[in-house]
Amino acid sequence: MKNDFRFHHTLRVRFAETDKQGIVFNANYMLYCDVAQAEYFRAIGMKFQDLLQMGADTVLARITMDFKSTATFDDLLEIYGRVSKIGNTSFVMDFEIYPQDEDRLVSSANAVYVCVDPETLKALRVPDQLRLVMGRFEGKDFNAVS
Amino acid sequence: MKNDFRFHHTLRVRFAETDKQGIVFNANYMLYCDVAQAEYFRAIGMKFQDLLQMGADTVLARITMDFKSTATFDDLLEIYGRVSKIGNTSFVMDFEIYPQDEDRLVSSANAVYVCVDPETLKALRVPDQLRLVMGRFEGKDFNAVS
Amino acid sequence: MKNDFRFHHTLRVRFAETDKQGIVFNANYMLYCDVAQAEYFRAIGMKFQDLLQMGADTVLARITMDFKSTATFDDLLEIYGRVSKIGNTSFVMDFEIYPQDEDRLVSSANAVYVCVDPETLKALRVPDQLRLVMGRFEGKDFNAVS
Amino acid sequence: MKNDFRFHHTLRVRFAETDKQGIVFNANYMLYCDVAQAEYFRAIGMKFQDLLQMGADTVLARITMDFKSTATFDDLLEIYGRVSKIGNTSFVMDFEIYPQDEDRLVSSANAVYVCVDPETLKALRVPDQLRLVMGRFEGKDFNAVS
Repeated sequence: MKNDFRFHHTLRVRFAETDKQGIVFNANYMLYCDVAQAEYFRAIGMKFQDLLQMGADTVLARITMDFKSTATFDDLLEIYGRVSKIGNTSFVMDFEIYPQDEDRLVSSANAVYVCVDPETLKALRVPDQLRLVMGRFEGKDFNAVS
Repeated sequence: MKNDFRFHHTLRVRFAETDKQGIVFNANYMLYCDVAQAEYFRAIGMKFQDLLQMGADTVLARITMDFKSTATFDDLLEIYGRVSKIGNTSFVMDFEIYPQDEDRLVSSANAVYVCVDPETLKALRVPDQLRLVMGRFEGKDFNAVS
Repeated sequence: MKNDFRFHHTLRVRFAETDKQGIVFNANYMLYCDVAQAEYFRAIGMKFQDLLQMGADTVLARITMDFKSTATFDDLLEIYGRVSKIGNTSFVMDFEIYPQDEDRLVSSANAVYVCVDPETLKALRVPDQLRLVMGRFEGKDFNAVS
Repeated sequence: MKNDFRFHHTLRVRFAETDKQGIVFNANYMLYCDVAQAEYFRAIGMKFQDLLQMGADTVLARITMDFKSTATFDDLLEIYGRVSKIGNTSFVMDFEIYPQDEDRLVSSANAVYVCVDPETLKALRVPDQLRLVMGRFEGKDFNAVS
């Protein structure tokens, strides 16, 4: 449900993202979630550059995606995103993709990201500053978790 | 475990498939599974053209992917694949991706495909001929399921 | 020169579009030109759907691209585009790509598109209505050409 | 003409590389040339890792591509490639793409690569060792040029 989200990013489907079936190729929805994750960080005031300055980067550890209906070239898609949980070294984001002005779910995703050292790619605790900013944006107390 | 599979497809990582972190961009592993699915069908003697002639096509309905370690440009990757279950209108494939000559798991996936009418994209029962061929290849009786 | 163009489309570089060298992979600039072409048609009031209704589609016949400097993740790029010539069955577009707020040319392209029948993909004369609309937008008389 | 080349690389068109028109999206042919360039270097015994050890990398400076006919999912394509000229800091490669067992040209390309310092990306003279190896493979004396 769109109402469950405080953030969304809108993009238009590119011709190259469609396939022979005339619809968006499935792996592109995963790409869209990646784009939306970057925009989410910008929206909450914590761009990837800010994160790097805090000595952290994020890598995708696990994703589950459901494909419910189709989209095609030139469609405007809204990718809704939210942080639903923060663990010790990881945080979970939920995504739902809808065509603009429609309540028809195209795809949904549940993604687990791990905070890592940008050099060694080793897991590290989700920075307190990030917990704070995500919690403020989502209206939750993520420090209490974990 | 590689030994759990009777099929694998080998491909070499393209430069364009790497990203700024110097490693394969995550959505490309989903693309690799799509390539391996097409090759699996060829391997069991049921090319996508044969499937279309039987009045069926397949669409991805759900996928769960785990990202365990990394790969980079020029690496040879082996994508292991098997059909683990056949339901009424869907079948499940498991994928595991390893660098050639290594036992280090890079990524694994569990994918649910639905058989559909190529025109209407409506779900239809997995053709008996496909159950038979998949069962013969995997050494299982998939007719008994569902 | 940006001033030579009446149209531009802005997009942000996606993480997946960078490569191991840390910069945008070259073929993605060709993709950006394709995106800009579709937006150009929208900007002049002739969406691809309108074109299809006139019984025409466009295919790329030839492209020359120069790569002058680099761009990377999160950069905002402006793709400037214009129709510079219309022949009998083809038209030429020039593209120049700059980072937003910079005069540093990243890439330029010269692309020849052919109007084709959407079904047979056979070349057909550029529709008069399209010549008119492009001419009006560019401030040129394209009917005189050819 | 295939006979003009001593090297080719074969690849199979992936489903994701097709578009809504049912054919390979044009920018993917540029990607195929990039794949073929890497394989060419391997074929002449000068892998990109060898090149890096010599303190050189290559970047694409200019490309002209012609699109002559179409290819689609599952097609086996042969990308023919050769070095046709070596300048001071650059070398030129020609590519021609054909479906396997057909003489129908799908696409051709003329690409100018510049040798650069891997760190600074500044142009540097094409290493003599590379001139030698390319000349030996192509049966030409590239040292004489420039």
